[in-house]
Amino acid sequence: MEESIPAGSVKLKETGSLLTGKFTTATDVSDIDALVSKALEYKADPYKDSQLGARKRIGLLFLNPSLRTRLSTQIAARNLGMEAIVFNVDKEGWQLEFEEGAIMSGSTSEHVKDAAPILGSYFDILCIRTFPSLVNRTDDYSELYISEFIKYCGRPVISLESATLHPLQSLTDVITITEQTLQRPADFKGRKPKVVLTWAPHVKPLPQCVANSFSQWMCAWQGKSEFVISHPGEYELAPEFTNGARIEYDQDKALKDADFVYVKNWSTYNDYGKIFENDPSWMLSVEKLQLTRQAKVMHCLPVRRNVELSDEVLDSTHSIVTQQAGNRVWAAQAVISELLRR
Amino acid sequence: MEESIPAGSVKLKETGSLLTGKFTTATDVSDIDALVSKALEYKADPYKDSQLGARKRIGLLFLNPSLRTRLSTQIAARNLGMEAIVFNVDKEGWQLEFEEGAIMSGSTSEHVKDAAPILGSYFDILCIRTFPSLVNRTDDYSELYISEFIKYCGRPVISLESATLHPLQSLTDVITITEQTLQRPADFKGRKPKVVLTWAPHVKPLPQCVANSFSQWMCAWQGKSEFVISHPGEYELAPEFTNGARIEYDQDKALKDADFVYVKNWSTYNDYGKIFENDPSWMLSVEKLQLTRQAKVMHCLPVRRNVELSDEVLDSTHSIVTQQAGNRVWAAQAVISELLRR
Amino acid sequence: MEESIPAGSVKLKETGSLLTGKFTTATDVSDIDALVSKALEYKADPYKDSQLGARKRIGLLFLNPSLRTRLSTQIAARNLGMEAIVFNVDKEGWQLEFEEGAIMSGSTSEHVKDAAPILGSYFDILCIRTFPSLVNRTDDYSELYISEFIKYCGRPVISLESATLHPLQSLTDVITITEQTLQRPADFKGRKPKVVLTWAPHVKPLPQCVANSFSQWMCAWQGKSEFVISHPGEYELAPEFTNGARIEYDQDKALKDADFVYVKNWSTYNDYGKIFENDPSWMLSVEKLQLTRQAKVMHCLPVRRNVELSDEVLDSTHSIVTQQAGNRVWAAQAVISELLRR
Repeated sequence: MEESIPAGSVKLKETGSLLTGKFTTATDVSDIDALVSKALEYKADPYKDSQLGARKRIGLLFLNPSLRTRLSTQIAARNLGMEAIVFNVDKEGWQLEFEEGAIMSGSTSEHVKDAAPILGSYFDILCIRTFPSLVNRTDDYSELYISEFIKYCGRPVISLESATLHPLQSLTDVITITEQTLQRPADFKGRKPKVVLTWAPHVKPLPQCVANSFSQWMCAWQGKSEFVISHPGEYELAPEFTNGARIEYDQDKALKDADFVYVKNWSTYNDYGKIFENDPSWMLSVEKLQLTRQAKVMHCLPVRRNVELSDEVLDSTHSIVTQQAGNRVWAAQAVISELLRR
Repeated sequence: MEESIPAGSVKLKETGSLLTGKFTTATDVSDIDALVSKALEYKADPYKDSQLGARKRIGLLFLNPSLRTRLSTQIAARNLGMEAIVFNVDKEGWQLEFEEGAIMSGSTSEHVKDAAPILGSYFDILCIRTFPSLVNRTDDYSELYISEFIKYCGRPVISLESATLHPLQSLTDVITITEQTLQRPADFKGRKPKVVLTWAPHVKPLPQCVANSFSQWMCAWQGKSEFVISHPGEYELAPEFTNGARIEYDQDKALKDADFVYVKNWSTYNDYGKIFENDPSWMLSVEKLQLTRQAKVMHCLPVRRNVELSDEVLDSTHSIVTQQAGNRVWAAQAVISELLRR
Repeated sequence: MEESIPAGSVKLKETGSLLTGKFTTATDVSDIDALVSKALEYKADPYKDSQLGARKRIGLLFLNPSLRTRLSTQIAARNLGMEAIVFNVDKEGWQLEFEEGAIMSGSTSEHVKDAAPILGSYFDILCIRTFPSLVNRTDDYSELYISEFIKYCGRPVISLESATLHPLQSLTDVITITEQTLQRPADFKGRKPKVVLTWAPHVKPLPQCVANSFSQWMCAWQGKSEFVISHPGEYELAPEFTNGARIEYDQDKALKDADFVYVKNWSTYNDYGKIFENDPSWMLSVEKLQLTRQAKVMHCLPVRRNVELSDEVLDSTHSIVTQQAGNRVWAAQAVISELLRR
């Protein structure tokens, strides 16, 4: 490996922070490898900073449901000694207004301009999950919801998945790839891992967040991997997030010699939010994995078995999805600790 | 100011309590100013009693949804070292029976006589939110639900808003007014602040709780303010809560020289639970504020922008709604600590 | 009492455990009396092991709603210093697949094979509530859901009520009976308490769990009670759980000289999940209690008043349902502590 992956070797300046003051996109991170190292240090010693968050509170606001993200973030905060409070927003009871100047005589009951500062006064860090509509691309890609929270709450904001990105998932993914390469140094001696993001079939239209975000992070993790995206032609991702990636429409070619295969469905970006082709042959199978270098298979979960990925793959030693989901805790812990240190 | 507001100057007897053993109405408080002082002490030093609630548990039972009340009460309890457990009642899964002698062959699955003592055995303090039906005034104003919990749970009960009152909000409001007057002593030298509660338009029938309660507290806060209520004729409040207040149907006259304007919608009390007149000219605007002494504007939130209050007012320095909502924490903390000290 | 009930007298081997490594059925317990003693020790001194669970996490997964079980288990975990995290599964958002080899193109979004190991990586102990369908007896009695979680999560599992059993309730019931007999030693000198489980009417078909489980525990609590089950002929319970119990179809005969009467409705087992006869004369009344030795009346709650049990009984000194529900905490605490000690 020409450029060694520096887990454990980075010395953080005690006074600096690896983050801009929020965590909603790869561009908030000044040094991805340093953040990964931090996460792996927490994995080795979860309670090393168990007093860092004492008498601090983190609020987890879910405008959309969550399992792994909620639990891993709650656990990460508690490991740092923070109080974590979850609030699932009942759409009936608390519909937020985001439009400037709205005459609120309709169904929305509170404006983000009023809600966000209160939440900012209750919490030291605010985490928010908000999904895209998949109806209006301009609205979704403007990231209005999370941007307005950032604008009005006055606190560091962590995205728990927004309309277009899922940075805690992507940091987790880089941690997992790093960890794998560190565990098998001989395999990666003198070469970069080949990482392939491949589209997979699904039964309903899903957001592009995980794919956008993984691509954004892989491109930002410059020079550390050979990154390829593969999908049927209609499923182009937003160019702003794939800038620097190689696109290969032939899945077999893409998989050739891959070390890591990230499997994920997403709906169309161009003719927005739709399922066009849903060719079952794009499902990753053990046969296809023979094209790879015994690739490890990743997925953010939940996964539709025998639709996105075959049982055979998921139940084989190729799959690292459980390790990957476990790493969600350490990603969140690294991010929260950096925001606390500011 | 003839009667100085005694924040910080009251010495509580360590063995006494400012509360009757519950907190559901202004009449549970023996000395409002002393309770306000206590709250302001917690605002200055949130963790001064961080061991007071050690190994004590507070239960927050929501028969109706909540955001600010839930969060601020949870935070207050944690500041005192208490364990706080929230339970949102699923109406489908756990409908309570309140009628004495009921043959429970219908939709209710548990009688308050059985549920309340169990909750009392699990918690040291019990908090309850229960909204009015707005259909049957006699039932709502009998406060059956919260009264039965008090009767059967055997523990101190805190109202998180009941059918007719919202005392944690009102205590917050007195705290906020007190704080403002203390910050500008010159403005209030030799005179009491003029406080106006004004009705505002809305799009659906709301409970009278916040208005009832604010009026009850202002009247109980004897001699500390000049208190005026203004509303269209049909929106008379329950006389039991406005006894001592001046009613002024002309909003302009009411606003004249006001120091604080509390804006709130409520539905009719007499012909119960309805919206009659909904005159948009009752919305508070910057023009109307010119009648006042640069009044500070209060609202319990959530607020319908440009229906109850204009953007211009809410985005101006007149508005203290964020400060007010922040004070919810200190109100709850003062109340819980008093109940713990008993 | 020929065989003294050994509360307080059992010395646990510090290195052993009273449980098999899970708690889903009576057969997981090696010594019921020792577990009861442990629970009563916690009742006397809730915080005696307040550091045992430090830096351990317990997850409470509810596929079905809960009040008492959730609260008592949360409190028990906190008394032991554990972090307790509750997650109520939204049926819409997270439907689990349990079928091996399923092609997941339908409504289920995640397979237990993928979800359970992640939960196992997040928590030290996993608690699960999952109700029966009452439609397909074979499926329900196979206990597929909880078995799959046990198989795939890799952690000790505690049942918070499963398709056919409710062991935390039953342990609570044995604790309560033990406590009562210890409080009145003269009454039980030289004889075993007579314990009657009697069917009662209800308005909708209920699971057999509580009745199955109580019967299973009474039979396992060998030689400690004279145990009788009474119900109309159509309401036979599953033979696997009543093996060792006397069945008496005449309720009056069953009640004769009873010391404890456990009242509970259940739907039919044979022609599965139905209500046949719903004879109101099976409701326990004060008249019927005259047949007993001033029996104490038990119920797991929630109870339909004047359908299952009369007001007169519930409001009399016969009823120990509040004491019983309070004991849920100590049952859970004993179980969790045993699993932590392994």
